[in-house]
Amino acid sequence: MKGFGVITKGQVGWFEKPDYVCGELDAIVKPLAISPCSSDVHSAYEVDSPFLKDMILGHESCGVIIEVGKKVKDFKPGDEVVIPCTTPTFWHPDLQDTPHQHAGGMLSGINFSNTTDGTFADQILVRSADMNLAIKPKELSLEQAVMITDMVTTGFHGSELAEVKFGDTVVVFGIGPVGLMAVAGAKLSGAGELIGVGTRPNCVALAKEYGATKVISYKDGDLQQQIMEITNGRGVDAAIIAGGDNATFNTALAVTRAGGHVANLNVFTELPKFEFGYLETGAGFMAHKTIRGGLCPGGRRRAERLISMVTASRFDPGRMITHRYTGFDRIEDAFMRMVNKTPDLIKPIVIM
Amino acid sequence: MKGFGVITKGQVGWFEKPDYVCGELDAIVKPLAISPCSSDVHSAYEVDSPFLKDMILGHESCGVIIEVGKKVKDFKPGDEVVIPCTTPTFWHPDLQDTPHQHAGGMLSGINFSNTTDGTFADQILVRSADMNLAIKPKELSLEQAVMITDMVTTGFHGSELAEVKFGDTVVVFGIGPVGLMAVAGAKLSGAGELIGVGTRPNCVALAKEYGATKVISYKDGDLQQQIMEITNGRGVDAAIIAGGDNATFNTALAVTRAGGHVANLNVFTELPKFEFGYLETGAGFMAHKTIRGGLCPGGRRRAERLISMVTASRFDPGRMITHRYTGFDRIEDAFMRMVNKTPDLIKPIVIM
Amino acid sequence: MKGFGVITKGQVGWFEKPDYVCGELDAIVKPLAISPCSSDVHSAYEVDSPFLKDMILGHESCGVIIEVGKKVKDFKPGDEVVIPCTTPTFWHPDLQDTPHQHAGGMLSGINFSNTTDGTFADQILVRSADMNLAIKPKELSLEQAVMITDMVTTGFHGSELAEVKFGDTVVVFGIGPVGLMAVAGAKLSGAGELIGVGTRPNCVALAKEYGATKVISYKDGDLQQQIMEITNGRGVDAAIIAGGDNATFNTALAVTRAGGHVANLNVFTELPKFEFGYLETGAGFMAHKTIRGGLCPGGRRRAERLISMVTASRFDPGRMITHRYTGFDRIEDAFMRMVNKTPDLIKPIVIM
Amino acid sequence: MKGFGVITKGQVGWFEKPDYVCGELDAIVKPLAISPCSSDVHSAYEVDSPFLKDMILGHESCGVIIEVGKKVKDFKPGDEVVIPCTTPTFWHPDLQDTPHQHAGGMLSGINFSNTTDGTFADQILVRSADMNLAIKPKELSLEQAVMITDMVTTGFHGSELAEVKFGDTVVVFGIGPVGLMAVAGAKLSGAGELIGVGTRPNCVALAKEYGATKVISYKDGDLQQQIMEITNGRGVDAAIIAGGDNATFNTALAVTRAGGHVANLNVFTELPKFEFGYLETGAGFMAHKTIRGGLCPGGRRRAERLISMVTASRFDPGRMITHRYTGFDRIEDAFMRMVNKTPDLIKPIVIM
Repeated sequence: MKGFGVITKGQVGWFEKPDYVCGELDAIVKPLAISPCSSDVHSAYEVDSPFLKDMILGHESCGVIIEVGKKVKDFKPGDEVVIPCTTPTFWHPDLQDTPHQHAGGMLSGINFSNTTDGTFADQILVRSADMNLAIKPKELSLEQAVMITDMVTTGFHGSELAEVKFGDTVVVFGIGPVGLMAVAGAKLSGAGELIGVGTRPNCVALAKEYGATKVISYKDGDLQQQIMEITNGRGVDAAIIAGGDNATFNTALAVTRAGGHVANLNVFTELPKFEFGYLETGAGFMAHKTIRGGLCPGGRRRAERLISMVTASRFDPGRMITHRYTGFDRIEDAFMRMVNKTPDLIKPIVIM
Repeated sequence: MKGFGVITKGQVGWFEKPDYVCGELDAIVKPLAISPCSSDVHSAYEVDSPFLKDMILGHESCGVIIEVGKKVKDFKPGDEVVIPCTTPTFWHPDLQDTPHQHAGGMLSGINFSNTTDGTFADQILVRSADMNLAIKPKELSLEQAVMITDMVTTGFHGSELAEVKFGDTVVVFGIGPVGLMAVAGAKLSGAGELIGVGTRPNCVALAKEYGATKVISYKDGDLQQQIMEITNGRGVDAAIIAGGDNATFNTALAVTRAGGHVANLNVFTELPKFEFGYLETGAGFMAHKTIRGGLCPGGRRRAERLISMVTASRFDPGRMITHRYTGFDRIEDAFMRMVNKTPDLIKPIVIM
Repeated sequence: MKGFGVITKGQVGWFEKPDYVCGELDAIVKPLAISPCSSDVHSAYEVDSPFLKDMILGHESCGVIIEVGKKVKDFKPGDEVVIPCTTPTFWHPDLQDTPHQHAGGMLSGINFSNTTDGTFADQILVRSADMNLAIKPKELSLEQAVMITDMVTTGFHGSELAEVKFGDTVVVFGIGPVGLMAVAGAKLSGAGELIGVGTRPNCVALAKEYGATKVISYKDGDLQQQIMEITNGRGVDAAIIAGGDNATFNTALAVTRAGGHVANLNVFTELPKFEFGYLETGAGFMAHKTIRGGLCPGGRRRAERLISMVTASRFDPGRMITHRYTGFDRIEDAFMRMVNKTPDLIKPIVIM
Repeated sequence: MKGFGVITKGQVGWFEKPDYVCGELDAIVKPLAISPCSSDVHSAYEVDSPFLKDMILGHESCGVIIEVGKKVKDFKPGDEVVIPCTTPTFWHPDLQDTPHQHAGGMLSGINFSNTTDGTFADQILVRSADMNLAIKPKELSLEQAVMITDMVTTGFHGSELAEVKFGDTVVVFGIGPVGLMAVAGAKLSGAGELIGVGTRPNCVALAKEYGATKVISYKDGDLQQQIMEITNGRGVDAAIIAGGDNATFNTALAVTRAGGHVANLNVFTELPKFEFGYLETGAGFMAHKTIRGGLCPGGRRRAERLISMVTASRFDPGRMITHRYTGFDRIEDAFMRMVNKTPDLIKPIVIM
């Protein structure tokens, strides 16, 4: 098999690896489409991990099954499938009282391009296939299918973590692809006033299309002040963090009303520690502001549920694709596009 | 003051009553628009209640404040307001651990046209004004405002009772106005597949507009069988009952999967008892099907939240208005239209 | 292997069967103690099921492992283990959004003595051993261990279904072993006033020991009236049904306040249908009374959690054992004791 | 009226103030018992607040009603009552979707000795009496009654914030009176293994009496390491912070498993900011650790619920009283005892 990935920290390229041997619960999938993610860039250039040597990158994909293990019941070669980016083994007692993302160890649910080879390859090995794959219906486009695997499940998780309900006033910090899906998810959780925070024109336009009632920018003044003005001094019911830094997190805390929720979706690997102000935390964690962040849910049912929302025309995640590449060899170009981001980039995709 | 209501069971008409005296926490509102509800018809012709003598009917309305009590802080004469159909006093210790609809006694939250005069009058007395009224923004139409007071809050309560979440498969039994809003609410709670049950063409069309992915009819065969086919034998995650009879309720139970929810919004006053089959209840209440029904939430924050959803263009409840009347005197015509329902009627409105 | 069970409906006895072959995920356990349950009697004499031919009965047990499959990681021969009565395979995608008791089909989580041979044998086959077994600590007695497998998890589930919280007023209908554990579980969920309903003196005494503040009996008058008097007319926050019939269920509904919970633990197999009165359901399911019933949770973590509560001396389920038998051959005597219940019987146990 | 309080920051003493005038919704109560709290000491010597001039301190009390406003329905002079330390007006629309502690403004629910005179006086003015007072039953001792008003409701709130459930492993940091009640509350929420962190011998003994299975001390080594050893490397399901500093909070985060809860009860007024490590927060808020802290619930129903738990003998908060004073004039001695803490002090009480 052939794949594109990180050779050693800071150096990316193509390499050959032995073909996968299909375990009895596994499936081997030939990708039909993949998309690079900013965390792939991150893995290639910034993360120090013993795993990131000759590691095929990528975790967003859909494809066609070419082989299944003998104990796989619900899938067969030829099936077109959505492959979640989070694929737990689903065989650990922790599943009985812990989020599946962390069953058997924190973040163990994510393996693609972290601890095992990822999706930028001509073969993808999916463990626990019956538990992780979802059939791609004909009416779901490849673009939509690939977006579901990470951007949608991650962005939508914001409203779950923040327990958004009818008429909540919600702010989403960051309107890159995760933030855009956080906006769409908040709308479909019942948000009323829905404020996006961002600046790039195509993201601003798309945020409004997905449901933002207002989009504000740091260029127009202090964010906290802008949000408090929009909310008549009451603050928001829910703040979803989909980008930014420690200061952003602190602002999210500050603008959340007593009894509200702060949900984190952002990867903060570069931070050795977080600093939160006394007032921002609600007089020192006295104001019932709930803080909760977490890796996106994966697995089959999650994918099937999100697919059903797209086929029901609740929203179209394919609208986020700004750059299209055709052919397996273009993975590198798509990846480098992510490395050298231009303001017009939201998500690139490679169609095989 | 003048009003239209029930003189005695089975006899309706206009009558004069003394003007309201405004209590210190109250507001007196002159209606700008009202809408009759099928429960007004019910109160006039079917209910035996000592209260229903010379009782002004109606509980859906919006208007302009003409007087407020001296302890009212947030409202003043001239304010245009939405008046929820459920207006608890909000002054009972039960509020500390019981739904406000029932604080101080089951269903005590609803008083208009039940225990005190309703909204089909040239004056409406609203108790606990600061707790119950919501400012009608300019961009909210009268039609939208009146629909929020009952149809929206009731229909949306279906998804709350049924705890609808991303990708749930939902069925709504009955697609009259409450059912239509149950459809809209389920969509805005994250429903994927969303099945309406109904027959009238304009309701079917509107259900699809509000988010139904399919609408089925008893005319096309057994409902349970149709629903099980659509769901590939798995049943629904949530069933919302917005019409029908005991058999409908039983069908709702039957099609709900183990671990799913059945929410009741329907008024079943004519039933002395309910019968549910052993299998339908999940082998005798062994299958974690949650059954919960309840009167719609009222109060100020609820109204403000629903208003924010409409002004955010999440949905347009005004689309349900099929019959418009102009002038106070037309209340009777609008009411009689509700009495003598034609298949094209969804909701009538009277604009003063 | 040898076992005691139902030969055909109405006829019980001992029989020989071939030894189990241990699957790669399974464990074979030699019982150290078992306890008959009233549902074993039920299976033997009342249920019509194609499975109940030459079926070894029993589902409550603990034992010592004699063999494990080659993929079992956390257990080995010689380990003393608690065997939950509910042992799902834990390998079905339904686990991702459905209670494990019903993953892959309603009630599929329970197999012992229903669809596969039970625990009244000299060998017990436990599927998905890593997911279902829990180590029996030395300080846990055999009596306690066996009670955890069904009575404790079932009784405690009452408070979970009813969402009991600090200071709730709770009534438990029936104070047989499940009801007694419902009492203990309600206390350990924060119940204040905690009313047991029952008559037998040793059950009454034990209910008080486990936390009942009052025990009432039908012999002293109408139950609904007694409960409404104790609660000063307000009704209970939560009613747990652990015995009785349709009338009991209806009374449970009637005494539950608006916004309260009714939890069912009782097996109602003899009922073709349920009848609930209009008033009892809260004016026709308008009063936010939540009704939910379900088979007890099983699996490893559940057992480990309950074990930790017993070893922490939160309660002693072993106090329910009223009749002790020693030796494998006494299974029949213990079972017949359950068939011919005397008023002093709560739970019998057989120690091997 | 006469009272003891803070004259100006750092200076305490007795002073006279005009008698209260009873508002129509208020009650005036003559205290039967009061208890100083460490936050009274804090208010006297450490807090900079424009309110803390000639302010009567104290917020824990019970007493006998001497006057009620004309609109008070459920209480009358002569009634013995428990007075919660948190007494919102319960007349603000925020109550409809915000915790009552913060309705109308963050922490607005607490007024005694913060914004209005407190309980170290011969008169106590209780606003919204019907909403805030609870009858003290005869069988509730004065010690128990006073402890309910703050220590019990605060400590028990830990398990609510942390959503403790059956078999959770819980750690409580700090076993002063709030921590002791957090231990009792965790036990009565279903905790299995329950670890207290503290050192003083009488607190250690009492923690075990209230339900701690183990008590560990910083004197015996690193707390994180001790907790991870006790939990076999898995960490706790819930950590409750009832004392300590920023480092304690960080340790609480560190020892909480992925998917677990961290609840804060501690007042951190001296901290300008919080610092949390990347690993401790779960790889930068990626591990579904929920953080939530908040002021204790107040109001009538809360008090009634906690009273019912004490009269049901679920636990005895009176066991925390280590120092008893008799007579109104001894308030100063009791307060100074709190100022000059000795290791044997848990809670002092003054019986009038």
